[in-house]
Amino acid sequence: MAVDRRVAALRLRLAERGLDAIILTKPEDCRYLSGFTGSSGPAAMLLVSADRTALATDFIHFEQATQEAPGFAIIEAGGSSRRFTELLSAGPRPAKVGFEADVVSVSELGRLSAEAEKAGVELVPTEGIVGALRMVKDEEEISCVLRAAFVADTAMQHIAACLHPGMTEKEAAWEAERCLRGAGSQPLPFEVIVASGPNAALPHARPADRPISEGEPIIIDIGARWKGYCSDLSRTLCLGPGPERLRAVHNIVLQAQAAALDGIRAGMTGAQADGIARALIDAAGYREAFGHGLGHGVGLEVHEGPRLSLGSADIIEENMVFTVEPGVYIAGWGGVRIEDTVVIRNGRAQPLTRAGKGACPMEAS
Amino acid sequence: MAVDRRVAALRLRLAERGLDAIILTKPEDCRYLSGFTGSSGPAAMLLVSADRTALATDFIHFEQATQEAPGFAIIEAGGSSRRFTELLSAGPRPAKVGFEADVVSVSELGRLSAEAEKAGVELVPTEGIVGALRMVKDEEEISCVLRAAFVADTAMQHIAACLHPGMTEKEAAWEAERCLRGAGSQPLPFEVIVASGPNAALPHARPADRPISEGEPIIIDIGARWKGYCSDLSRTLCLGPGPERLRAVHNIVLQAQAAALDGIRAGMTGAQADGIARALIDAAGYREAFGHGLGHGVGLEVHEGPRLSLGSADIIEENMVFTVEPGVYIAGWGGVRIEDTVVIRNGRAQPLTRAGKGACPMEAS
Repeated sequence: MAVDRRVAALRLRLAERGLDAIILTKPEDCRYLSGFTGSSGPAAMLLVSADRTALATDFIHFEQATQEAPGFAIIEAGGSSRRFTELLSAGPRPAKVGFEADVVSVSELGRLSAEAEKAGVELVPTEGIVGALRMVKDEEEISCVLRAAFVADTAMQHIAACLHPGMTEKEAAWEAERCLRGAGSQPLPFEVIVASGPNAALPHARPADRPISEGEPIIIDIGARWKGYCSDLSRTLCLGPGPERLRAVHNIVLQAQAAALDGIRAGMTGAQADGIARALIDAAGYREAFGHGLGHGVGLEVHEGPRLSLGSADIIEENMVFTVEPGVYIAGWGGVRIEDTVVIRNGRAQPLTRAGKGACPMEAS
Repeated sequence: MAVDRRVAALRLRLAERGLDAIILTKPEDCRYLSGFTGSSGPAAMLLVSADRTALATDFIHFEQATQEAPGFAIIEAGGSSRRFTELLSAGPRPAKVGFEADVVSVSELGRLSAEAEKAGVELVPTEGIVGALRMVKDEEEISCVLRAAFVADTAMQHIAACLHPGMTEKEAAWEAERCLRGAGSQPLPFEVIVASGPNAALPHARPADRPISEGEPIIIDIGARWKGYCSDLSRTLCLGPGPERLRAVHNIVLQAQAAALDGIRAGMTGAQADGIARALIDAAGYREAFGHGLGHGVGLEVHEGPRLSLGSADIIEENMVFTVEPGVYIAGWGGVRIEDTVVIRNGRAQPLTRAGKGACPMEAS
């Protein structure tokens, strides 16, 4: 089973660091390693050591954990102190136990430290051990993202076909959401973005009651979720023929994306990948207008590693899944973003989302 | 404006603790104090001192923050270290700066401490200062929860009317979601729960492909969101007349809820409120079957303070909003939960959700 391979990979990392065990509370990490889908919020604490896998959760999730995480001993305990103590007591006591310093709050560390001291256990800060494993997807995970990508493509096609002048951003967003969910998406990984005209200058705009008009940029950014895995897809549409400036900006962003999709290679850093698209946008005179990174990893979280951005030292590897999404945003006028979710296969970026991109920009029909 | 009153209340708390300022990153706290609706994840860092209110966010959210948080100086900065430094530098330097120890991760505190040292600033751990303010709602907030409650009532009525034998849990959940969203809810605060038959023994079950049959418990747990504020509502339905055992368990839970709704008073602890319902369920022989607390606060988060549960020392106060939701869960058989969102007015619990509860149990028509 996939979770067995993941636990084995984690154990290797623990051994490399001289850790006897690690405790985990981040919901996506817990799901990745155990299969427990939990619910929102920190529903469980996992302990993985060389010879044990145990999961502590509350009454509310006990039955569910028993069903979903057959590879783990399930312990019923509420509150992180009690969970930690029970996990430690349920088997041979580890001496050095890692915890996720980028997840555990300062207050929680205080509580855990008190328990660790009583138990004679040393708590060791770690960062991103499971996150690094999660960056490289297995075939099962890639299939899930592909399915989520397919659902997003379907919804993008649908919304492009039914957009019309006078439809508000909110109406269009709801239409897209209905289509995403109707096509089988689990609860969406993020709120649908429909940003038209000047609102398209806000990369994370919320849909407004603004009616959409002809001749203005309309950024649609949607994602679906399939068995927990996300997709992320953006297109910039226009009702009727796009005016000159929109066509020009759309063309620059399209070329920047094409260059990145074509040029990204396994072995590059995230900064190098980002640089491919950024160089073209800079050269076209829009240096300040591309104010975010080229992309981000996609998996159980819609934003995870690797980061493709200025200064990112993350190395791109085979079977990583991430977005490629250059954009140009001009306050008061609008913006253009074109985004696909891709997987690295044979060292190159292969798009999982495949909705048409049209020309300068795609005309909604 | 509401945010001005909230900032003033926060300043009083800072003065009481001898703090010159506080930095905040929890999205709901930031929204509560500034109006900035951000997006999912820590999109901003706020600094509130006796004479300054400033908000640091990235390029992506800069325009949005400028529009939504007119009472704050908006600073563009990415990453928590840079945000912290820029917030400190943008005005008179505070000497003692509080941070949220229950929100800030161990790793982040390390980064912030390095910056604080350079700036000659003392970082002081605090817990739940803004959370305590948020527990007591103002009239504007109560109106939002009421509206979200009204939307949930509408959807509950709709789903009760269209449930039929053979409909799967997933189909029913999607029908409920469509109705919630169609009636104006923002993205739902939590995934709709439709748990039928033995699945009703899992308090947080995910809807399955299981077809619903006559004569079994069907727990429907839904919430809506209006201007950021949540509602939370559960009913246990049955297609056709309920069998004897279901009628008996439903009656116990209904009586326990009625006793709590009638008996809760401002000034009680969360544990005392919980005890009202728990005593009745215990007396009926279901002590082990009511494995969660009686309720939780509802506001910008669907789970916030106060907690109504065994051992909770939270004091119930006028204008607090929380759920009252006793339940009985029996593995292999099913369960019953009845939940309303209430507000404390004139010292007593006044339900904001008002969907019919029916008798023993409510029959879906």
